[in-house]
Amino acid sequence: MQFLSDNAAPVHPLVWEAMHAADAADAPYDNDALSKRMDEAFSALFGRNCAAMWVATGTAANCLALTTLVAPHGGLVCHREAHVETDECGAPGFYLHGAKLLLAEGEGAKLTPQGIESVLAGITRGIHQVPAHAIAITQASEYGLAYRPQELESIGALAATRGLGLHMDGARFANAASFLGCTPDEAAGPVDTLSFGCVKNGGMDSEAIVFLDPAKADIARWRRKRAGHLQSKGRFLAAQVLALVEDGLWLTNAAAANAAAREVAAGAGARLLYPVEVNELFVRLSPEERAALRAQGFAFYDWDEGTARFVTSWAIRQEHASALGKALAAL
Amino acid sequence: MQFLSDNAAPVHPLVWEAMHAADAADAPYDNDALSKRMDEAFSALFGRNCAAMWVATGTAANCLALTTLVAPHGGLVCHREAHVETDECGAPGFYLHGAKLLLAEGEGAKLTPQGIESVLAGITRGIHQVPAHAIAITQASEYGLAYRPQELESIGALAATRGLGLHMDGARFANAASFLGCTPDEAAGPVDTLSFGCVKNGGMDSEAIVFLDPAKADIARWRRKRAGHLQSKGRFLAAQVLALVEDGLWLTNAAAANAAAREVAAGAGARLLYPVEVNELFVRLSPEERAALRAQGFAFYDWDEGTARFVTSWAIRQEHASALGKALAAL
Amino acid sequence: MQFLSDNAAPVHPLVWEAMHAADAADAPYDNDALSKRMDEAFSALFGRNCAAMWVATGTAANCLALTTLVAPHGGLVCHREAHVETDECGAPGFYLHGAKLLLAEGEGAKLTPQGIESVLAGITRGIHQVPAHAIAITQASEYGLAYRPQELESIGALAATRGLGLHMDGARFANAASFLGCTPDEAAGPVDTLSFGCVKNGGMDSEAIVFLDPAKADIARWRRKRAGHLQSKGRFLAAQVLALVEDGLWLTNAAAANAAAREVAAGAGARLLYPVEVNELFVRLSPEERAALRAQGFAFYDWDEGTARFVTSWAIRQEHASALGKALAAL
Amino acid sequence: MQFLSDNAAPVHPLVWEAMHAADAADAPYDNDALSKRMDEAFSALFGRNCAAMWVATGTAANCLALTTLVAPHGGLVCHREAHVETDECGAPGFYLHGAKLLLAEGEGAKLTPQGIESVLAGITRGIHQVPAHAIAITQASEYGLAYRPQELESIGALAATRGLGLHMDGARFANAASFLGCTPDEAAGPVDTLSFGCVKNGGMDSEAIVFLDPAKADIARWRRKRAGHLQSKGRFLAAQVLALVEDGLWLTNAAAANAAAREVAAGAGARLLYPVEVNELFVRLSPEERAALRAQGFAFYDWDEGTARFVTSWAIRQEHASALGKALAAL
Repeated sequence: MQFLSDNAAPVHPLVWEAMHAADAADAPYDNDALSKRMDEAFSALFGRNCAAMWVATGTAANCLALTTLVAPHGGLVCHREAHVETDECGAPGFYLHGAKLLLAEGEGAKLTPQGIESVLAGITRGIHQVPAHAIAITQASEYGLAYRPQELESIGALAATRGLGLHMDGARFANAASFLGCTPDEAAGPVDTLSFGCVKNGGMDSEAIVFLDPAKADIARWRRKRAGHLQSKGRFLAAQVLALVEDGLWLTNAAAANAAAREVAAGAGARLLYPVEVNELFVRLSPEERAALRAQGFAFYDWDEGTARFVTSWAIRQEHASALGKALAAL
Repeated sequence: MQFLSDNAAPVHPLVWEAMHAADAADAPYDNDALSKRMDEAFSALFGRNCAAMWVATGTAANCLALTTLVAPHGGLVCHREAHVETDECGAPGFYLHGAKLLLAEGEGAKLTPQGIESVLAGITRGIHQVPAHAIAITQASEYGLAYRPQELESIGALAATRGLGLHMDGARFANAASFLGCTPDEAAGPVDTLSFGCVKNGGMDSEAIVFLDPAKADIARWRRKRAGHLQSKGRFLAAQVLALVEDGLWLTNAAAANAAAREVAAGAGARLLYPVEVNELFVRLSPEERAALRAQGFAFYDWDEGTARFVTSWAIRQEHASALGKALAAL
Repeated sequence: MQFLSDNAAPVHPLVWEAMHAADAADAPYDNDALSKRMDEAFSALFGRNCAAMWVATGTAANCLALTTLVAPHGGLVCHREAHVETDECGAPGFYLHGAKLLLAEGEGAKLTPQGIESVLAGITRGIHQVPAHAIAITQASEYGLAYRPQELESIGALAATRGLGLHMDGARFANAASFLGCTPDEAAGPVDTLSFGCVKNGGMDSEAIVFLDPAKADIARWRRKRAGHLQSKGRFLAAQVLALVEDGLWLTNAAAANAAAREVAAGAGARLLYPVEVNELFVRLSPEERAALRAQGFAFYDWDEGTARFVTSWAIRQEHASALGKALAAL
Repeated sequence: MQFLSDNAAPVHPLVWEAMHAADAADAPYDNDALSKRMDEAFSALFGRNCAAMWVATGTAANCLALTTLVAPHGGLVCHREAHVETDECGAPGFYLHGAKLLLAEGEGAKLTPQGIESVLAGITRGIHQVPAHAIAITQASEYGLAYRPQELESIGALAATRGLGLHMDGARFANAASFLGCTPDEAAGPVDTLSFGCVKNGGMDSEAIVFLDPAKADIARWRRKRAGHLQSKGRFLAAQVLALVEDGLWLTNAAAANAAAREVAAGAGARLLYPVEVNELFVRLSPEERAALRAQGFAFYDWDEGTARFVTSWAIRQEHASALGKALAAL
């Protein structure tokens, strides 16, 4: 029973279907009919004029988006536990040519205006320090917490006041939007760029970078090619994204993953480190308790000494979630 | 009738099949069973101990391989018309942190020891000039010409004498190997690293980087992650590569593309710029002749004022190749 | 008798004097009184509002200026024999994060609108090729030829039409301005940024980057610090520049070097590869003739098989120039 | 009375003298007689075979040294308050092509094996995290504390065990060596590379990079040129370094600065944040107390809310140090 991650789940049947439908040769790169439909699909989704492009991974999506917001001599304010800081093997340093991550604090890996201001307040020595150029937040956060629209507004207001760009890592944006029950536009808030996650939510190997400021897309197109991310059969990536986005499959899949997580959460009860809002659970468990769970066939990661992480995917079998919930309750 | 390129052809049915067979969740990144089989598959293919890793594009494959051969302050000797120089939007500059391409001459976009030596001879002013660190050749060349094993040996000997790395861009390595009729090992010759093309030869979005010196693979693994090219569902990329490589499909597909090109070539006759060895034809055609062909339904690229380029893919229909051959003969 | 280069000549006594006058501690970096005077000094010199900053070398001056004009994914059009291409060991690749030099042709290492247009005309494949972002010219050129104000206007017009930045490498700007007999503003023409050479013209280790568009200076200040070029005792660099610029010493020194070159040129006569406009001479000489000159005590570089290069500096002794002129005439 | 920093002090008369002695033209770059003497001078100083090169700033010295120890995908362990982290405007990110600084804790900005191990212990997720390639320490530390030879040995042992490079930022190496009273070799310990500070210690604009492993120097020479730091009149930089190093002036100057600091420290007494080992004092002072001192003519920096920083230079006048000591005692 797999609770390791949602990042290796099967591909959704409708996504497979869309990929097959894209098999016949079309124009290469992103000149095919499907790739050309992406701007429109995301403009419809967000209710405003967007530009969107596919790319194979979330790391590349984040980094390419950031190339439009952070100059090589600039800094990116992000949470100390943000994925871009901890899990991308220095990819932002590569894509941003040595730009610096400026680490902020915040409960549950969520940034707050106060946390951001605290970082900015430390930048006082002019040319000797890296100036902040942008802020990055993760929706939902690395601890599975969703930013409320009002929280996004307040961070956006700070960014605007300070003249900073605002990027959202939306590896689990669908899960956050499903939880929030608001429009996609409200779940994104006033960001300039968004990595819209698909791989963890039924896709195979395509994410979308959404430019809510479409003028920013141009630079990213050059950078995508330059990074070897402009695939010649791009139609297969576009097909995945459109299959998820155009008919609501992205929300259906996310809702399924979230529901499973809620069921597990009910069993975990007071052991939960944070409220379960999306499809990740951080559960206080002793080594012995973990061993007991593993002996029952549950696979999951150790987070730290006292905590384990469980992730549910869109493809999880209902009975596995129930079983885990019961097993946790029975500890 | 499509002769624009082989880079947007459909995916081979056996590759689709292998991808479907990989659907069930496995370990993420390249920890799955298929990814782990790649070293073995290429070691078998080349008859020596290799390391191999998948990556989505040929541009990334070339660049990641080159990170193991060229330091940021170094230079890469390549042909003036090499793909890395002309068609990758500066990707080597990005991946190699500003390393310089040192351009050599050679008939049909093939390098020769003389052409390489001529570039090296111009590097005389010590610290003021970029020193050569490696050589890159393309098998088959950008004009569709295959390096003979003996030619590879002589370039390899020069590289060894000069202490230079040797990389092969094998976007159409399969077509070259099929034409040469030699072993894969002979078609690669004494290179350190090889981009083994799959996308143009029946794959969807996976190429292989082969380290004929396996010790070089380690650096490239870090660089792949850092470039956002370590996909979480890497099993789908490995599946494509293995489907092509393990049972000879790579050669079958290449042979089909080559055969179609030969049929077209027979019709083109004296109009050919170069002998047709693989699946690309460069044909002298006036603007009027091109218009006439296009009116008959043939799609192809203008190469320059007096020449058009035709490419056949593994999926080309026999009657299309025949039709083009006849149409050219009839001009 | 030293004709190797002007780049290792002694420091002018007035420059030494200015440096000594700057010895008393002042604010560090460029917060001292002298550094703060640089904008004003160059605004006066060019008769328009400029920003200026010191930096230790011409390579750094060129590269820092270019960071304001060329993005990492862009290209810089320059002459095939431009110093940035041939003699800076890839420094532009480092400072511009892998941006590409796009090489143009032109007699005597001078660019022309036609030569530039010819490079631009080859950029036709969109995202697959590096787009031009700026043009760099050298005043005087690498063969010692000065751009006339009208030539600068025509290149500037092309740059404006094409939306390209325009940089001038002025390692020997003083020599060109002295030869042209025009105002500094006319000798610079419509460039955005200028490396104003001092080291070859009486300075010790300071060049000036002049931003004829002052808004561009801000980015370069960050990049200068980031490149380790913001010296803490910057007052000594400012002192050198001001000593040369504020009272016309830069022109006096250049005139002396140019006059010496003219004297040599008179002796070289028909052996000259190009007319001698500044302080460099390229003279056709056989190996035997060179040996004969060296036997007479003249030191100079071989340029290529049939040509030797002679450079006169501000500090050259009149009798050395006379002697060389006579020796050449006597060959 | 200037206690702001030692980085803008006058140039020592003997350094001026050496620079004047170098005025006559010699070979450019580092081909002159003085530059060629540097390896020998430092080999004599450290009692072992060293390579040494000049460079204009400490930031460049640190970064160029680090290019020989840290690959672009690697990490550098340094103190959270190290100069490379806090005061170089991201220069390591630029020179190391996006390599990451991995921040360790330690009292008084000194690293300990435990602090380093704690950082290394957090690197557990393989390819997803930046691997450590080297360690950087500052001698004396950013709080003016000197590493004892035994402390250096223990850090060196850890580095060796872990296969990490070891760099020392010696902006105030002279002050540390003077305090420690040991040989230069003991004050450097088992480091691979050392930035040997001269600018703060009587020089004008030259530091030395010392390669205690001489084989590492070659890469740095290319990188220096590529960074625009290879000055054509390098003899003036070499002259400064040699003037300080060859006859012990570096220690004389450092001793003077340290002695002045000790005199101030005697007055500061219990207000000192750390014992005063070199020429920096961190003194607990209320805003009112600082205002009072400034009213008496003392210039110094606020360090943080409760602390002010005072730095003495080699050129400080004895009576100024006495006056400050008394003023502090009188508060």
